[in-house]
Amino acid sequence: VSVDRVGVVGTGLMGTSIGLALARRGQQAVLVDADSGRAAAAAALGAGRAGEWDALANCDHVVVAVPPTVAAVVVTQVLRLNLTATVSDIASAKTNVLREIETLNPDVSRRFCGGHPIAGRERGGPGAAQPELFDGAVWVVCPSSATSEAARADTEELARRCGARTAVVDASTHDAVLAAVSHTPQLVASALATRLAAAGPDAPSLAGQGFRDTTRLADSDPALWASIAAGNAGPVAAELRTVSDTLATVAASLDAGDASAVERLVAAGRAARGLLPGKAAAPKPAWARVGVVLPDRPGELARLFGVAGEAGVNVEDVSIEHAPDHPVGYVDLDVRPEQADRLVAALVAAGLAAHRND
Amino acid sequence: VSVDRVGVVGTGLMGTSIGLALARRGQQAVLVDADSGRAAAAAALGAGRAGEWDALANCDHVVVAVPPTVAAVVVTQVLRLNLTATVSDIASAKTNVLREIETLNPDVSRRFCGGHPIAGRERGGPGAAQPELFDGAVWVVCPSSATSEAARADTEELARRCGARTAVVDASTHDAVLAAVSHTPQLVASALATRLAAAGPDAPSLAGQGFRDTTRLADSDPALWASIAAGNAGPVAAELRTVSDTLATVAASLDAGDASAVERLVAAGRAARGLLPGKAAAPKPAWARVGVVLPDRPGELARLFGVAGEAGVNVEDVSIEHAPDHPVGYVDLDVRPEQADRLVAALVAAGLAAHRND
Repeated sequence: VSVDRVGVVGTGLMGTSIGLALARRGQQAVLVDADSGRAAAAAALGAGRAGEWDALANCDHVVVAVPPTVAAVVVTQVLRLNLTATVSDIASAKTNVLREIETLNPDVSRRFCGGHPIAGRERGGPGAAQPELFDGAVWVVCPSSATSEAARADTEELARRCGARTAVVDASTHDAVLAAVSHTPQLVASALATRLAAAGPDAPSLAGQGFRDTTRLADSDPALWASIAAGNAGPVAAELRTVSDTLATVAASLDAGDASAVERLVAAGRAARGLLPGKAAAPKPAWARVGVVLPDRPGELARLFGVAGEAGVNVEDVSIEHAPDHPVGYVDLDVRPEQADRLVAALVAAGLAAHRND
Repeated sequence: VSVDRVGVVGTGLMGTSIGLALARRGQQAVLVDADSGRAAAAAALGAGRAGEWDALANCDHVVVAVPPTVAAVVVTQVLRLNLTATVSDIASAKTNVLREIETLNPDVSRRFCGGHPIAGRERGGPGAAQPELFDGAVWVVCPSSATSEAARADTEELARRCGARTAVVDASTHDAVLAAVSHTPQLVASALATRLAAAGPDAPSLAGQGFRDTTRLADSDPALWASIAAGNAGPVAAELRTVSDTLATVAASLDAGDASAVERLVAAGRAARGLLPGKAAAPKPAWARVGVVLPDRPGELARLFGVAGEAGVNVEDVSIEHAPDHPVGYVDLDVRPEQADRLVAALVAAGLAAHRND
């Protein structure tokens, strides 16, 4: 296993973030992009050193971080460029990439292992990159039957050096799961968002936070998502049909005056969401919530967190709501339940309007 | 117009928040609930004074804040209880409530005006109430043909006293818009969430932030949403069928090897989302973003906000991401663009790992 000299091909959000993550460890990646100005921008951000294709010849491992429609083509170019480096990619659909690579000479294709870090942002480009993008995220590793042990081990090591946890999953399982948890939610969010335009002039002002959250993904790039959907067309189409059928069934029940299908659907959705690991897990996050009203001016948050710190309370999460046209903000602090009353008391003693809010 | 003596029937999230909002102005509401312990809890939270039905006799205006399935029944009870007060409700579907009230004697039904504040939380009950829940929100006012000028004016005045902006919308338009921007997104979020359970044991760990955001609404109460959907069955069924048809059409295009329907859908969704007013509006929020890595322990946030306050920088928004299994948190601070470089410099001078992140 050797990934001490890493090449990154494609310096958008993902490739630049890989470079930044490696730079935290003192490791300098070679950055290559069809747009050399973009590679230079990534280098200026601290993601590594910009180079041309021939600079990849000295790498131990090359990760190809290009849009999914061109992933297989660029991986093939890289495999043909260099006789020793192992190669991985980051495309969000794996079956079609592996299928193309498997058509290559086995001496070449064995150096490739599929990869897919489950991380991203709505914004793209090197400027949106974050060194922490992969910290704690899952980086799926999808070896094919041709993949060598070294290629797989290098891909896993790259993921770990970027701060991610690895999960080895076969490509078809990966693609079916991603259709369900990523690609289809993206398209459904877009479908819901379009209804805002169709619902008449009153609709935008009547849309609340729920609509905003549910359609947040709809801000994403149309061309990128067309490319992702095309790369995983079969599983995405199957998921879309399943969701479509569910919605049609509920509509028919409502037309028949029966809301029990709605109740079953919402109950099933809530139960399924409880399967999510971590903070969002059911039954409920373990934090207690304390609400505080603050004047919306410099120094007030410092005062708030100063009081919390002096009380020995660690704030686990915070959200700020601005009241439009009002000179106040409303802050929710999530803390360990046994610390909540102490925090409220300390804040009230400091003259702040604080209350338990759970 | 007189809403100096307000009665609140139903002291859940919404009714208690109305009481808290009025209390900010020094106005004490009369709180009535079928569960008198719940009314007492709301009173203890500062939302007003708990009373029985007969206490409503002295009110100028009574707002009925009960679940939608019983809204018309309780409004009718209140209208029959009291010969002078105007009455409004807060149910999220208006046509069916107005239809029932219109069957009453016109001397009675003229005192009623429909209302619907567009605000809420996934959590319910008086403990989830917030005095600021309605600040800056839209409170829809739906008079019927029978509604008196006084009833309508009182309903609008109540909304303003709670911090909301009012919008007069006819009931059928309201119901169609809410089906599109609230009720259907809720059910679609649930449908997406159920797919997590169907997608196999690898799915929960492969679900990212996008899935969490898109399905956040799916944590809501099944019985409440069955009641809401039943109260607006026609428009919700029509919306569900439209979204269902859109998804089926895209699935068919993908099966035919054509991703252009995906690109058009995502582009249309993004354009529609740009119609949203305020922070989420297109092209982009005006804030600049500064990212900071922090040890996850008490006092670090105080230090961070202390440095920001001393630099004279007002933090407009903040989000904290915890890296699971890592003893660090990643904090994004949104600030006015002209203050971002100053903030980064001040944080770096204080020894914090800060960078521009936009």
